[in-house]
Amino acid sequence: MPFVRFQPANVVADVPCGTPIHVAALQAGILDLELPCGGEGACGLCQVEVLGLDAPVLACKTRVTSDLVVRLPDSSKTTARVLGDSHSLIDPGLLPGRDHLTPLYHDLRITVPPASIEEHYSDWTRLTRELSRIGGAAPVGSQLPVLRQLAEAVRATDGNVTVGVEEESVSGQRVRDVRPGHSTAHALGLAVDIGTTTVAAQLVDLCDGSVLATQTAYNMQIRRGADVISRIDYARTGERLDELRRLVLETVNGVVRLLANAIPVDPREIRAAFLAGNTTMTHLALGLPPRYIRESPYVPTVNSVPELRAQEIGLDIDPLAIVAFAPGVGSYVGGDITSGVLCTDLSASNHDVFLFMDIGTNGEIVIGNTDWMVACACSAGPAFEGAGIKCGMRAAEGAIERVAIGDDGEQLEYSVIHGGKPAGICGSGLISLLGELFRQGIIDRSGRFFKSPGAGRIVEHEGRRAFLLAAAGQARSGKDLVITEADIENLIRTKAAIYAACSLVLENVGLAWDAIARVYIAGGFGRYMRVADAIFIGMLPDMPLERFRYIGNSSLTGAYIALLSREHRRRMAEIAARMTYVDMSSNPQYMDRYVKALFLPHTDLERFSKWCRLSLARLCGEHRYG
Amino acid sequence: MPFVRFQPANVVADVPCGTPIHVAALQAGILDLELPCGGEGACGLCQVEVLGLDAPVLACKTRVTSDLVVRLPDSSKTTARVLGDSHSLIDPGLLPGRDHLTPLYHDLRITVPPASIEEHYSDWTRLTRELSRIGGAAPVGSQLPVLRQLAEAVRATDGNVTVGVEEESVSGQRVRDVRPGHSTAHALGLAVDIGTTTVAAQLVDLCDGSVLATQTAYNMQIRRGADVISRIDYARTGERLDELRRLVLETVNGVVRLLANAIPVDPREIRAAFLAGNTTMTHLALGLPPRYIRESPYVPTVNSVPELRAQEIGLDIDPLAIVAFAPGVGSYVGGDITSGVLCTDLSASNHDVFLFMDIGTNGEIVIGNTDWMVACACSAGPAFEGAGIKCGMRAAEGAIERVAIGDDGEQLEYSVIHGGKPAGICGSGLISLLGELFRQGIIDRSGRFFKSPGAGRIVEHEGRRAFLLAAAGQARSGKDLVITEADIENLIRTKAAIYAACSLVLENVGLAWDAIARVYIAGGFGRYMRVADAIFIGMLPDMPLERFRYIGNSSLTGAYIALLSREHRRRMAEIAARMTYVDMSSNPQYMDRYVKALFLPHTDLERFSKWCRLSLARLCGEHRYG
Repeated sequence: MPFVRFQPANVVADVPCGTPIHVAALQAGILDLELPCGGEGACGLCQVEVLGLDAPVLACKTRVTSDLVVRLPDSSKTTARVLGDSHSLIDPGLLPGRDHLTPLYHDLRITVPPASIEEHYSDWTRLTRELSRIGGAAPVGSQLPVLRQLAEAVRATDGNVTVGVEEESVSGQRVRDVRPGHSTAHALGLAVDIGTTTVAAQLVDLCDGSVLATQTAYNMQIRRGADVISRIDYARTGERLDELRRLVLETVNGVVRLLANAIPVDPREIRAAFLAGNTTMTHLALGLPPRYIRESPYVPTVNSVPELRAQEIGLDIDPLAIVAFAPGVGSYVGGDITSGVLCTDLSASNHDVFLFMDIGTNGEIVIGNTDWMVACACSAGPAFEGAGIKCGMRAAEGAIERVAIGDDGEQLEYSVIHGGKPAGICGSGLISLLGELFRQGIIDRSGRFFKSPGAGRIVEHEGRRAFLLAAAGQARSGKDLVITEADIENLIRTKAAIYAACSLVLENVGLAWDAIARVYIAGGFGRYMRVADAIFIGMLPDMPLERFRYIGNSSLTGAYIALLSREHRRRMAEIAARMTYVDMSSNPQYMDRYVKALFLPHTDLERFSKWCRLSLARLCGEHRYG
Repeated sequence: MPFVRFQPANVVADVPCGTPIHVAALQAGILDLELPCGGEGACGLCQVEVLGLDAPVLACKTRVTSDLVVRLPDSSKTTARVLGDSHSLIDPGLLPGRDHLTPLYHDLRITVPPASIEEHYSDWTRLTRELSRIGGAAPVGSQLPVLRQLAEAVRATDGNVTVGVEEESVSGQRVRDVRPGHSTAHALGLAVDIGTTTVAAQLVDLCDGSVLATQTAYNMQIRRGADVISRIDYARTGERLDELRRLVLETVNGVVRLLANAIPVDPREIRAAFLAGNTTMTHLALGLPPRYIRESPYVPTVNSVPELRAQEIGLDIDPLAIVAFAPGVGSYVGGDITSGVLCTDLSASNHDVFLFMDIGTNGEIVIGNTDWMVACACSAGPAFEGAGIKCGMRAAEGAIERVAIGDDGEQLEYSVIHGGKPAGICGSGLISLLGELFRQGIIDRSGRFFKSPGAGRIVEHEGRRAFLLAAAGQARSGKDLVITEADIENLIRTKAAIYAACSLVLENVGLAWDAIARVYIAGGFGRYMRVADAIFIGMLPDMPLERFRYIGNSSLTGAYIALLSREHRRRMAEIAARMTYVDMSSNPQYMDRYVKALFLPHTDLERFSKWCRLSLARLCGEHRYG
């Protein structure tokens, strides 16, 4: 097998002949080689140098045929992703308290009382009695390796032992590990959001709830379809289903390796994982045939996946680690949504109606309060995750996350995540850019440029007009960063799908926008998605800003919370049980609403009177409009 | 590796150089090659012919060094053991009813209702709702392979599926299997009694509770010590503990192969197993260090072993089969005893005091009633299982199970299990023989022969006196079947240990013999152990015969019952919880009682006045005594 060495990280991989370089990189533990176009060779952002070759090659398209030394771009280094900040976006009161953590797996330091002739209970009985004395319920089981070391462990240090206990939702606690002494080793857990486009994960210290590292990667399934429908269609044979299963697991396992390397720890020390994903992603990750998800009556194999073991799934952590899943509601409202709703204020005293929007490749919308919840889904596309956009990228280091264009239409300021030269533009940057282009009269209401290439920052790019974000000299790639007319059409379609679904579900429950006390916006756009920008382009309704709250990747945050708290796992199951799914795809009014939203901000300007009035008035009064 | 072919069965095994022939036979699936002396080369009963050699060799002592053809004795063929009849010895009311079986694993034939747009519950939800509708509680989990086939299974035949459900004691039901259609395939279960000397097992049809086959084998650990104390001592290093673990598993797996071949079925179709064994055997079978069982305060690692999976243990059945264990009480009262007590009448209305005696290599005694139970243990030795006795054997085909000696001391009649020439003598035969030798004045009260070799059936055997049971021409082995003075001493020691422990435990609870309403005698002596014989030799107390009940291998029968009934598994746990263990080994009075019982029937003849009076009077009045 050819042998590939990656510089400057100086890590290696043995791979079969014909393996693409980016897969070899993944195998070597390098996951931040960006493939924004999903490995289609379209974006050119995955250029690497191969020792002995004159010109750089694309890592996604070049296959390994002999031993190689590959030099990755300097930007390619292990960095924590900004998604890690999502927790700071939600109400701290919604996070489990540090003093009351009841994680899926936890280490308890207890003292097993010695046996005597009078009290000759077995080691196991004395251990479990002590556990139930402090925890309320006796464990229901264990595993043979634990029992084999039990006698020595309880005798080694006067009965002082550290007991690893895991919690199954229905059946109860299991003893996973008994170590002599009161060990201070960290118990590690993993929270994962398996998105259609992006996989995000956090390594968590289960003792104190702290996030040790956060990483994201594009779901390697992207090469087999951009959205869930195309993946379901692809998975129609057993072999292809297994291919998709392996691709997403490769992605997750790669992210896990990066998380572990960042500390560093052995991934096999991760004792528990909580996974949240939409129903199709969950099915594909488990190798469950997704076919019936998209055939009437749209029924998945399972919504609430019972707890499984890591080795059953193929997750490269402790093979016997417990893996729990956020429960889903139906074929198009999955565990990522119940996980996300856990990040909203559903306290029993709160009867105000809220709207929750998770904007990923699929857009999911939940409306309701403590007592009732209605959910629906729409296909938004992966544009806000950077996929399908020429210079799009995830909200990671080097991404432009906000843009300001001067009144002259030429001066441009942007902020880059973690500073430095920009590598691309992420979701919040795209929303900001679209608004600025519109506000400054550079594009019309349908998203077309008013001017021709040469005027201001308008350039020609591959035969179509484009807006120059950063010239080659300012960009990390050494190439122009542009946003094309095709990109803008894509963004408008995305925001239209979201707005149309929101207004329709609101009509369905007979409520008007102003009945909504709070709007939670979830999605991995980036730290600084400004709600005002999103309203300005007509993605969000025109309501007072204080009613909006951007909560970041709430699917990941919810998985993190559930990993740490029994009470929140129970609450998540309740949310799933209480939620009703309304099928939007069969609603003939949806297309009408969608077409009307394909303008900036909307066909019906009255809907956006408050926030857009000034700008629109200015635009309509100036020559650029005509 | 040398290749061994066994005739007449015509089965083969590849084994490493140096493997004893009897191990190769086991590997080829032949388990009924008797090693009564535990492979010490002492009894000579495991003779086999090797093609090309003039003289027969001992299978236990001869090692394979090249390819061989081995001819086994004609008697060596697969036959069901008579232990299978133990069930017929207990009150039929104690067996679970055929119409109310709730086995550890069972197949349920259900119809999963179809989904609709209105009722779009997932396949898993519809399945588990239906299961909880008919069974009262929803299953708590499943396994990934089951979920992977679920969608197709529930759609294949209008929702008609056969669901394999297993029952964990504390946590609840798990779905192990979902097959399309209402299959009529048998679900197979295994009940096992792991004895210190003998392993007995039954293959059970879990659908109707019928016993498909029964097999027994000597525990291959015998070569490392005859009783639990010597095994515990042997297992003091990790390697030796693992050796003992492998030996008993080899035995159990060999028995399982024989059971499976007898039907025939694939052993991997066995979905559940219920194991009963004493605490040391359970520890050794699981690889748990037994050291603390015999060190004060005599505490085992675990009494109630949580359910495990067959593959964790190394049991060669379905790797994911659930394996449950009869709960033990303490270091010297294990799951074999709670399993045995399940075969006695402990119905809530019964407040009579019973005595339960399980006579194996360890003798265990329980006294009590529905409300209280006290247990103790004594070391009886393996004599009644045929081990340590020159011509002893298990209660299997060819065993002499009853003996009658004419008044002339020479005429002799015996009955052989399944007829034909005798191969040896089993426990019930030994008890009967000992009584007859005493009754006919052939031995004195201490077990010595009155006469010298040449008189009657007294012969000289290896320098000591012996009684000729069958001459070479009448025996299967073609050798004389004899009982030696050493054998008789051994039997007297065994019966003395049992009687001494019984009387002491009775004193301990402040009761006299006549306060006992019923005496249950358990042990694998054979079908026809006559209580009158056992009283006559002073093994059992002199009480009215109708108060005794011989219940055979109650540990195996209890395991069989528990395999089939949730209610009985619960009852077994209750029995374990209610039983108190009294340590006999630390009681100084025990040795006194033991020494007094080292005579036939006892030092104190008054104790046996009723049953022995006539015989003793006759004996004392005749010249043979003086």
